[in-house]
Amino acid sequence: MRATDLATAFPTVTLNTPALEAARLLASQKLPGLIVTDDSGRPAAILPGTQVLRMAVPSYCQDDPTLARVVDEAAADLFMRGVEGRSVAECLPSEYREPPVVSPRATVLEVAAVMARTRSPVVAVVDENKSLIGAVTLAALLNRLLNT
Amino acid sequence: MRATDLATAFPTVTLNTPALEAARLLASQKLPGLIVTDDSGRPAAILPGTQVLRMAVPSYCQDDPTLARVVDEAAADLFMRGVEGRSVAECLPSEYREPPVVSPRATVLEVAAVMARTRSPVVAVVDENKSLIGAVTLAALLNRLLNT
Repeated sequence: MRATDLATAFPTVTLNTPALEAARLLASQKLPGLIVTDDSGRPAAILPGTQVLRMAVPSYCQDDPTLARVVDEAAADLFMRGVEGRSVAECLPSEYREPPVVSPRATVLEVAAVMARTRSPVVAVVDENKSLIGAVTLAALLNRLLNT
Repeated sequence: MRATDLATAFPTVTLNTPALEAARLLASQKLPGLIVTDDSGRPAAILPGTQVLRMAVPSYCQDDPTLARVVDEAAADLFMRGVEGRSVAECLPSEYREPPVVSPRATVLEVAAVMARTRSPVVAVVDENKSLIGAVTLAALLNRLLNT
């Protein structure tokens, strides 16, 4: 079995996609993260789901979540407004790494080794021009290996 | 909106659950991780999905995934046998942290702050005895906040 047998189309966003649109994709498809592509369709980064929250939640609350309790419930429900008007590029960690990639010919062991090494539950599959073909998720990999 | 409005039953495993059973749960339900409970039903750890792979993939392949290419395809398909007979306890990182927890009364901002701080897409909801009531996932949180 090769990466190409496990790869599926995977929702991508670009650096200019609104952060709220990325959050909707993450939520509706229960994705562990999104692949961010550059203008030429090459994977540029992975946006982890929790990173969108890091943009939306005031930093004093992240430093000490108990401080969130001073914000009343009605106001607390609205904190996602903090990402309105922001782009995916603004949500990425300041020193983001390129996403883990494999070739379509990679064996499942190589895909698993890349996931284990990078602790990423998504690996991008790219052709010889580094253009995105699809992605292998941890769930897809385990499903095929365990025949669930 | 409070954590109790967002919490859902969440599959748990114990420290003694076979690692392969945990892998099947992760795969079939597309979970970002599993909550590991101790004998008294209190959350003891979170098992990230990729951690099961770290147990199964030979360490020389994790150090350099290109070395996985020397293993032929048929043998590569069988690497998950490396966790046969192992327990969840053996899959946990050697210095694992207790999982992020909130009370049922936590606001969505507090839940989001805990997720943002710990970068965990799952937060356990516990009662005053620290017993597990349910969990809030990133997808559930975003879905409710964005009304998707």
